[in-house]
Amino acid sequence: MTGTKEILEKVSSGQMSVEDAEKALKSGSYADLGFAKLDLGRSTRSGCAEVVFCEGKADDHLVAIFKRLYEEEGRVLGTRASEEQYRLVGDALGDRVTYDPISRILIAGNPGSEEIGKIVVCCGGTADVPVAEEAVETARFFGCKVEKMYDVGVSGLHRLLSKIDMFEGANCVIAIAGMEGALASVIGGLVSVPVIAVPTSVGYGANFEGLSALLSMINSCANGVAVVNINNGYGAGYLAAQINRLAVK
Amino acid sequence: MTGTKEILEKVSSGQMSVEDAEKALKSGSYADLGFAKLDLGRSTRSGCAEVVFCEGKADDHLVAIFKRLYEEEGRVLGTRASEEQYRLVGDALGDRVTYDPISRILIAGNPGSEEIGKIVVCCGGTADVPVAEEAVETARFFGCKVEKMYDVGVSGLHRLLSKIDMFEGANCVIAIAGMEGALASVIGGLVSVPVIAVPTSVGYGANFEGLSALLSMINSCANGVAVVNINNGYGAGYLAAQINRLAVK
Amino acid sequence: MTGTKEILEKVSSGQMSVEDAEKALKSGSYADLGFAKLDLGRSTRSGCAEVVFCEGKADDHLVAIFKRLYEEEGRVLGTRASEEQYRLVGDALGDRVTYDPISRILIAGNPGSEEIGKIVVCCGGTADVPVAEEAVETARFFGCKVEKMYDVGVSGLHRLLSKIDMFEGANCVIAIAGMEGALASVIGGLVSVPVIAVPTSVGYGANFEGLSALLSMINSCANGVAVVNINNGYGAGYLAAQINRLAVK
Amino acid sequence: MTGTKEILEKVSSGQMSVEDAEKALKSGSYADLGFAKLDLGRSTRSGCAEVVFCEGKADDHLVAIFKRLYEEEGRVLGTRASEEQYRLVGDALGDRVTYDPISRILIAGNPGSEEIGKIVVCCGGTADVPVAEEAVETARFFGCKVEKMYDVGVSGLHRLLSKIDMFEGANCVIAIAGMEGALASVIGGLVSVPVIAVPTSVGYGANFEGLSALLSMINSCANGVAVVNINNGYGAGYLAAQINRLAVK
Amino acid sequence: MTGTKEILEKVSSGQMSVEDAEKALKSGSYADLGFAKLDLGRSTRSGCAEVVFCEGKADDHLVAIFKRLYEEEGRVLGTRASEEQYRLVGDALGDRVTYDPISRILIAGNPGSEEIGKIVVCCGGTADVPVAEEAVETARFFGCKVEKMYDVGVSGLHRLLSKIDMFEGANCVIAIAGMEGALASVIGGLVSVPVIAVPTSVGYGANFEGLSALLSMINSCANGVAVVNINNGYGAGYLAAQINRLAVK
Amino acid sequence: MTGTKEILEKVSSGQMSVEDAEKALKSGSYADLGFAKLDLGRSTRSGCAEVVFCEGKADDHLVAIFKRLYEEEGRVLGTRASEEQYRLVGDALGDRVTYDPISRILIAGNPGSEEIGKIVVCCGGTADVPVAEEAVETARFFGCKVEKMYDVGVSGLHRLLSKIDMFEGANCVIAIAGMEGALASVIGGLVSVPVIAVPTSVGYGANFEGLSALLSMINSCANGVAVVNINNGYGAGYLAAQINRLAVK
Amino acid sequence: MTGTKEILEKVSSGQMSVEDAEKALKSGSYADLGFAKLDLGRSTRSGCAEVVFCEGKADDHLVAIFKRLYEEEGRVLGTRASEEQYRLVGDALGDRVTYDPISRILIAGNPGSEEIGKIVVCCGGTADVPVAEEAVETARFFGCKVEKMYDVGVSGLHRLLSKIDMFEGANCVIAIAGMEGALASVIGGLVSVPVIAVPTSVGYGANFEGLSALLSMINSCANGVAVVNINNGYGAGYLAAQINRLAVK
Amino acid sequence: MTGTKEILEKVSSGQMSVEDAEKALKSGSYADLGFAKLDLGRSTRSGCAEVVFCEGKADDHLVAIFKRLYEEEGRVLGTRASEEQYRLVGDALGDRVTYDPISRILIAGNPGSEEIGKIVVCCGGTADVPVAEEAVETARFFGCKVEKMYDVGVSGLHRLLSKIDMFEGANCVIAIAGMEGALASVIGGLVSVPVIAVPTSVGYGANFEGLSALLSMINSCANGVAVVNINNGYGAGYLAAQINRLAVK
Repeated sequence: MTGTKEILEKVSSGQMSVEDAEKALKSGSYADLGFAKLDLGRSTRSGCAEVVFCEGKADDHLVAIFKRLYEEEGRVLGTRASEEQYRLVGDALGDRVTYDPISRILIAGNPGSEEIGKIVVCCGGTADVPVAEEAVETARFFGCKVEKMYDVGVSGLHRLLSKIDMFEGANCVIAIAGMEGALASVIGGLVSVPVIAVPTSVGYGANFEGLSALLSMINSCANGVAVVNINNGYGAGYLAAQINRLAVK
Repeated sequence: MTGTKEILEKVSSGQMSVEDAEKALKSGSYADLGFAKLDLGRSTRSGCAEVVFCEGKADDHLVAIFKRLYEEEGRVLGTRASEEQYRLVGDALGDRVTYDPISRILIAGNPGSEEIGKIVVCCGGTADVPVAEEAVETARFFGCKVEKMYDVGVSGLHRLLSKIDMFEGANCVIAIAGMEGALASVIGGLVSVPVIAVPTSVGYGANFEGLSALLSMINSCANGVAVVNINNGYGAGYLAAQINRLAVK
Repeated sequence: MTGTKEILEKVSSGQMSVEDAEKALKSGSYADLGFAKLDLGRSTRSGCAEVVFCEGKADDHLVAIFKRLYEEEGRVLGTRASEEQYRLVGDALGDRVTYDPISRILIAGNPGSEEIGKIVVCCGGTADVPVAEEAVETARFFGCKVEKMYDVGVSGLHRLLSKIDMFEGANCVIAIAGMEGALASVIGGLVSVPVIAVPTSVGYGANFEGLSALLSMINSCANGVAVVNINNGYGAGYLAAQINRLAVK
Repeated sequence: MTGTKEILEKVSSGQMSVEDAEKALKSGSYADLGFAKLDLGRSTRSGCAEVVFCEGKADDHLVAIFKRLYEEEGRVLGTRASEEQYRLVGDALGDRVTYDPISRILIAGNPGSEEIGKIVVCCGGTADVPVAEEAVETARFFGCKVEKMYDVGVSGLHRLLSKIDMFEGANCVIAIAGMEGALASVIGGLVSVPVIAVPTSVGYGANFEGLSALLSMINSCANGVAVVNINNGYGAGYLAAQINRLAVK
Repeated sequence: MTGTKEILEKVSSGQMSVEDAEKALKSGSYADLGFAKLDLGRSTRSGCAEVVFCEGKADDHLVAIFKRLYEEEGRVLGTRASEEQYRLVGDALGDRVTYDPISRILIAGNPGSEEIGKIVVCCGGTADVPVAEEAVETARFFGCKVEKMYDVGVSGLHRLLSKIDMFEGANCVIAIAGMEGALASVIGGLVSVPVIAVPTSVGYGANFEGLSALLSMINSCANGVAVVNINNGYGAGYLAAQINRLAVK
Repeated sequence: MTGTKEILEKVSSGQMSVEDAEKALKSGSYADLGFAKLDLGRSTRSGCAEVVFCEGKADDHLVAIFKRLYEEEGRVLGTRASEEQYRLVGDALGDRVTYDPISRILIAGNPGSEEIGKIVVCCGGTADVPVAEEAVETARFFGCKVEKMYDVGVSGLHRLLSKIDMFEGANCVIAIAGMEGALASVIGGLVSVPVIAVPTSVGYGANFEGLSALLSMINSCANGVAVVNINNGYGAGYLAAQINRLAVK
Repeated sequence: MTGTKEILEKVSSGQMSVEDAEKALKSGSYADLGFAKLDLGRSTRSGCAEVVFCEGKADDHLVAIFKRLYEEEGRVLGTRASEEQYRLVGDALGDRVTYDPISRILIAGNPGSEEIGKIVVCCGGTADVPVAEEAVETARFFGCKVEKMYDVGVSGLHRLLSKIDMFEGANCVIAIAGMEGALASVIGGLVSVPVIAVPTSVGYGANFEGLSALLSMINSCANGVAVVNINNGYGAGYLAAQINRLAVK
Repeated sequence: MTGTKEILEKVSSGQMSVEDAEKALKSGSYADLGFAKLDLGRSTRSGCAEVVFCEGKADDHLVAIFKRLYEEEGRVLGTRASEEQYRLVGDALGDRVTYDPISRILIAGNPGSEEIGKIVVCCGGTADVPVAEEAVETARFFGCKVEKMYDVGVSGLHRLLSKIDMFEGANCVIAIAGMEGALASVIGGLVSVPVIAVPTSVGYGANFEGLSALLSMINSCANGVAVVNINNGYGAGYLAAQINRLAVK
């Protein structure tokens, strides 16, 4: 999508043939592995390299994707990875690979770059921790300084209120909760920076696998709250990192 | 359902015929107006006389029902009444009839008996006030002392926290909110008495006419919270009055 | 949230430093275990100590939480516990731990305090019994006298009607049913005390895991009925105990 | 669908040409009015003539359909008709047309044939009466003797129990209720004949326009209960008439 | 519910004490096994003895229920039984017990009484057969003559049309289908007797476990169609037997 | 998206400047009216010019859009137009504008080009006719020969079967139905060409504004059936015209 | 349904008896295996032989169906087959049977006839490939030339745009995507031939097993898009083959 | 929530009485108008003053709220205001009040402060413009420089692609779309800054008042996308302003 002018100037000056220019204009930048088209331009286009959703990938596909992205980018983030997938990728890429069983984050290369700015990741209960850790690890991978405020659900409000100073200086807050998902609204009313709300499937019965918390957060009466998919810690961490980068640039 | 023994003793002693006893055992206590069967035993059976849901009732039916219940009970509570219905019932029963256009409560006879105990009615925003007033008027009709805490939505938590002393001595709290309905959970975590949660249809979009608040409240992470139907201020007021009566008896 | 005045007086009189007062005002009362913040103030604030939802807790977390709460409170209630979790907690706390495999209630310390007042727990069918037992055990843990009326579903109404005397003197009735959940409305019409309705996921097909019973109970045509989450026997037992305590105090 | 053999015999014997036979075999029996195909064979095929759903029909279409069916059958049943439509059809067909504003039933010709057998139509509250009357009028049009048991909702069970003798001798019971729709299950447990359950949209909030009662009735714990569409009094009356006819034939 | 008059006459004549009469009037007729209340009056009250839903019953409960009902009624019908449950009940009651693994029907005593009248059970595809067989076995248990018309889904309409003569003389048709459930409407348009529609969960994707077929059948454009729960072959067979009995009595 | 090569060749040969080429490559072909971007390339890109969804458009916007498209294309199709909008556009473009109040189709310019091929548009009942006519008019606008088969709902199957010869030679069939939407499956089993199913919102109660028919059609057991949005006659007509054009080209 | 005239002529000329003609007219063409009615007329009626949905079929039924259809048609297509089912059918029919574990397509006889025309099968991500392959194999079985464009999800639009020439000459495009299903709309805006959209259940959380993609595709703002069931690659392939056949005939 | 330390120091130094300190600590900062509690601390706490949701407010309440906030803050933003409400507030506050009938934004005081940074507001079709304008006006009120990119729906992708340079330098993009809501995913794949997605209720049928677009956006396959409520242009504008402020500070 970029470089159109450059290509045209090369054609105009005869540095590039019409055929090559046509191909360049149309093909963009990706690696076609047959079973997948790796979006190599993404780190240029969107500031972050393509991330691998590991769950359900065939073993050989997963290894091939990690290898190719590692060659291109030097570091790769994988989400929803199993222990078994960790071993597979580790065998292929050696001890540059690390894995965290709670967040299920699998990283090849340097796990954390320099961490700058500040975001806060909050969650309502201990059952939300895996989602929270996915957000934390993702944000750190993309260079955020992260602080954690766990188990601060609204049924014991004083726990949250006692930690309120932690919000100071944060560029973004991630609010993660299941059940009735009230945490996002309460935090939204306390801070002046964006709140990214993550509904979780924690709960039972009429939580309908997270629908309850999702609707709650989408209907938040507080300002400055936006919502990502149920259990999508990764998405929240990524977005928080974007906001943090804007704030510290 | 009651008096079986008494009836049987009369039959045994010859004071009552088999036919009369059979009829008495089977018929219970209600007034059959043709179009309706007024449950006259309810005040004995459940402690509160039958209440009239006015919305959609035919004019002559409404008047007949109010008249008959007024004769039996001396006072009648009507909910969801229109101004026009107020005039109709007023014409029939005279100035013993009062009407409140916000709660849409229509009362024949003495509106409030002696008010005892204490309940607190809270709501999240000004748009929830009609539902809150329905709860307040109902609870007062059934003899509760009621205090109000309105516009204390969780997006400005300090408003609720500044009023926290009001909960002291309450036997029951009614928490009314639309949108994400988080108020119920927050209050549930602050008090040691039952919280009756009323979801309202206030909001728009993905609130789906109150479904969002309903699911939120049903999934509350706080203890001691139970839920009534969307916008059902009457039901909450009635239940609070039952609890209050138990506490002060 | 309490004691603000006391703290201020100590500061005013020099008994407490500004720094300590600030911390005290902000921190409230909880034990921070790292992975969890145990709400130690809850028994003061809401009359009942924090309860442990065991399902899905990591083994070491569960044991640590039980230990800490047991030290603080002398008795701990756990819900949705497995046999395996019973063994774990039993190994840590010794024979003060008891477990009921039907209700899946795990108790450390004295299971039942003195039982006062009276509540009645009803259920529609034998498949609802585990939920009913969770309600019974919870209410007993919090000091209620409980009577049971099981398998009184509305398809054989005479079973319920034959037991109707059992409601006498009850401060609260819990009505538990799956499928169409009609039991709550029928009982609501028979008693003059609060009815806490618990929809269960018992049934199949269009019961949609309890949604059918939930909607049924929320729309009850009877007065004095409020609803908790699907299968939430614990929540109903807790709320019934609150009401019972108000009534007998 | 019928008479195949007869047609073939005529062809074999030369009484009918191949062309005519082909047409006869393929065309069945209906009147093509251009905008509609009136199913004239239905009274032969299913025992009841086609019924006209009036709501939303264009004026001239409605009149044409009534006229044509009246010519064929001698009597026509229309449902969901307005006063205005009554005047239109009355102008076209004269005083053989009758209309009931509560059930919104419009009849051309003799409204009721000889009434035989017995069905009972029950409803929960006065707001359900229009649906109940649609069922009553339909069943009567198709020759049923009908008895009514209105306003017998389960919140005052003694009203229903006091009328229990009315079920004696019935071939079918129609149970009509909105809100939580519990009436169908309660009646299903009391009678030994089929119960046709009609959910209504009566209620508000989480009744979701009748969904609550529909799910309730579909999940009935009682035997012998089947369900028709929300507010479909006509469908229940028709089906009850079929069952009644089977029983008295 | 029955015999009130008889009891009263005995009291009047001194044959029965007031105390005994009171108990008799209140207790109805059921066997209280502790964990269950067996509805012994049901065969008197509704014409069919209580049926055992086996799925999920504890082993000892199941055996006790079968034994008690067998003693009372001489034959017992169990639905949704497993092979293992068959062995358990068989060990307890001997070779009077039979089991059909497709319908999962478990019968103690004489499986079929004399079969009278006629019903037809149709299903759309081979995957619907287990539900169909549950309907067939149930109807036969309650004395129906049953004919089967399987795999006649509407995508190959000629299969159904070629069997159309089978409907002749039937008192009731059961139409069983998953996916789009169109079979019920098509049959409803072809026959003049009641059609009981059974949606099944057969299908995938947007069938949402049978919701698609359920909505389809509830909205049928054909007359004389009523619907039971998803996969509820038993309920359809029971209701068909009621109708059949009315027709042949 | 087209002509990339041509543009590059012009740049290479100096016929076009780099700046002009960049603009041409990036801008595509649309008319920017400020409030709207008219997609002028669509007739080249997709074979059919942009169509105007009239409902809800501001008066001046509507007229401006019609004028601009009429200038470009010579004929314009508008859907969901009101009588009032017809007058507005008619005033602006004169008597080249025609309007059909049933389908609510508004056409500027020559309404029908030469009609080729053949499609058949079927609907279940008379209430579905407006949707059917929208499909018919759309398909004709795009050059299809259309035949109509209305009021052939499956409750009177012989009506459909008697018209079965009409399917001969059709390149595509559109099946339009509300309520249970069974028509699509029945037709899908009878023809060998694509069936485009259009669910309509015709019905009431549990049809949930067309959801019932939509699910029914998406789950069709017949092959060769695909579905468009509820009431989307236009979309079906457009797609049928595409298929018809492929077949006759 | 066909040949009515031929049969009648034979009867008229005495070549066929009335009895045989009646049977022929009524019976249509299918093989009744007892447990199933194989629709042998389908290849005549709809151009494609009956296809076997293998999932959940009993082993002996599956083998019998494959054998019978193979005898009749010479080649059989099975969908959603397991490896185990492949072995079973292979044992019965020998090496004429082939199986593809990704698409789970099982074919007896010549897998692909001559491939003509052109369709393009696109999918959004690698997790959608099994559904895509089902579409590909089905379309090839029915004689389509198929090209694949995989992993072209809209989050990296340049991948799709770089392949845009592949659409040239296609008679139909199949667009397969999970999550938000945006691919169908984007492709619908780029091509002038029918787009068959297949929502998949790929995703998590609020995708609700494919509902999200289904609603997205049904509401597509692009023209010429119609939708089949979630994960229904087979249905899309079949329909594409019908369109392709129309285009090349 | 702030200033605890300052208050304590004053108490410690005797500058403030214990009573005043207690009140100050508890009361926070709001104006209690009786019917409402205006959150005056919000501009300090969250950087933006309280905003007035005008729809449904009583006339005198609206005027009183505007007056009070205007006095405190000097400028007030009202959303979802009617023309009539504009006149009322204008009469009270004079010509400092402006109103935009498309966005329905009502502003008292200086409508726009200095506009800094850059955000881009995109929408899919002309029917989405009111929501887009609400976002634009809100963001401008809070000091954002805003650029608009309207009518760039994905069915004519070249319109969006031709404007792609507009994203350069933006700190945040708002993507507004109804129907299938695909715009958010496509933009999410093109930019490296946060995308705030706003589903709209534009569409019909299975869009279910915006549910379709909401689910689509929540399930976006693109990174860096978060979602606000249906039609919530205000919420998106507010959040974008927060992000913009972080980026330019």
